[in-house]
Amino acid sequence: MGIKLKSKELCDRIKTQLNNDVSTLKESSIEPVLSSLLIGNDGGSIFYTGIQKKKCDEVGIKYDLHRLPADISFQELKIIVEKLNNDDNVHGILIQSPLPEALNAREVFNLITPKKDIDCQTTTNIGKLYSGEFDFAPCTAISAIELAKQTGIEFEGKDIVVIGRSNVVGKPLFQLLNNEDATVTVCHLKSKDINKKCMEADIVFACAGSPKLVDASYVKKGSILIDIGTTNVDGKIVGDINLEEVIEIADYVSTVPGGVGPLTTIILLRNVVSNAIKSKE
Amino acid sequence: MGIKLKSKELCDRIKTQLNNDVSTLKESSIEPVLSSLLIGNDGGSIFYTGIQKKKCDEVGIKYDLHRLPADISFQELKIIVEKLNNDDNVHGILIQSPLPEALNAREVFNLITPKKDIDCQTTTNIGKLYSGEFDFAPCTAISAIELAKQTGIEFEGKDIVVIGRSNVVGKPLFQLLNNEDATVTVCHLKSKDINKKCMEADIVFACAGSPKLVDASYVKKGSILIDIGTTNVDGKIVGDINLEEVIEIADYVSTVPGGVGPLTTIILLRNVVSNAIKSKE
Repeated sequence: MGIKLKSKELCDRIKTQLNNDVSTLKESSIEPVLSSLLIGNDGGSIFYTGIQKKKCDEVGIKYDLHRLPADISFQELKIIVEKLNNDDNVHGILIQSPLPEALNAREVFNLITPKKDIDCQTTTNIGKLYSGEFDFAPCTAISAIELAKQTGIEFEGKDIVVIGRSNVVGKPLFQLLNNEDATVTVCHLKSKDINKKCMEADIVFACAGSPKLVDASYVKKGSILIDIGTTNVDGKIVGDINLEEVIEIADYVSTVPGGVGPLTTIILLRNVVSNAIKSKE
Repeated sequence: MGIKLKSKELCDRIKTQLNNDVSTLKESSIEPVLSSLLIGNDGGSIFYTGIQKKKCDEVGIKYDLHRLPADISFQELKIIVEKLNNDDNVHGILIQSPLPEALNAREVFNLITPKKDIDCQTTTNIGKLYSGEFDFAPCTAISAIELAKQTGIEFEGKDIVVIGRSNVVGKPLFQLLNNEDATVTVCHLKSKDINKKCMEADIVFACAGSPKLVDASYVKKGSILIDIGTTNVDGKIVGDINLEEVIEIADYVSTVPGGVGPLTTIILLRNVVSNAIKSKE
């Protein structure tokens, strides 16, 4: 019987560190500020900004939320983001996804100055990530990796399957795990026999957005399974892993909720605080 | 008995097209120009710039070679590259690798304006490559893929192993093959049982720089093997694949020399001509 891997303890540990860092910053009259742009009325984004606000309050970061209309023009957005770019009191800028269809997401993300781009949304920071010299990687990918590391596993030489290939999770996971000397296979909708591939993996990261996709037929005995799926099914958030079925086989299975999700927000805040500390130097 | 896959026919076809394109450009008084910076005296780079010059001559592109001393400063380089960036008569800029150790390669590559960065050396173009919206990918990776396509294979759903994870070949191959809906595994020095992984692959791209690494123990019957290795062994260029041994098992094995190498130069020239055509619009 495997262990259900939760992130609470790690989140608390990072939060304690952030509380201390923020106290020190405030002694130098620096209050870390995260500016967050929510364009339109996407339900998921409204939900996540609520969580971000709550966590910022707990840590002592000012959450500077900009609610903007869905029909805002690129030029209007540009003025707002450039003001935040040039404001020395702002330490991180996050643009909530998805964006309204009328906007070109890539152009909008690229309005952020790379040094305040704490979730690696800009082309420049994506380029730095894949050329191996990066300050910020997408927080969800970092969070999934840090949660897996809580098991004590070393990635070097391990066979890892990533199910899903989004620009914000699957592909950055490939790059970050490759940096850690793992052998990574990225599967997706067009892949054959994903379950057989997972069956040979030491670790599986599931980020397909397909509820309970990973069942017993996917799991090697003693493996580690990290669930990054969050699909809303009848008002309940459901992961990509059928936990109750696979916990009998795997050594560790991360939970949804209580796994990667809450850690992602904390990692985001860690990037804001780290930028605020840099601003002091 | 498999087929030895050579690139000559494809190269000739692309060259004919380029000759036609260049003739048309010259009717509009546009001569395509490739500016190439060779810093220091690396033997491989001297060899490759010789080939590039010859191929440019054949196609009708002006090869504008800048031989620069190994102890050139970043500031001096910056002045040279910025002049080329701003020169409307220059359609592509290439900085030969490796660079002298005193220079920061990433900073030097980033001197090139992205729109003339025909071999995807800049952070901006790497970012565009991995966010899926790119104009230029590294020419060696494109060349390996185009050569594999000569067999008529469709990549969708195929299991592909890439041996090697350099920023200029292995990782871009992952991204480009993933774009084509293949399931890609990237192996490297720290990977376990690379031969077993290759044994399950429909296609193997070998870019490890390890002479004759891929022997019969790596090869599934009917597979396609693309050799991107070019190691100088006693004055002779040797690939990563033991061709004579694996040709008995695979359906297609690309040759070294005569495979990916010559095609890479032609793809580079195609990017120059394509930029020259864009400059007319």
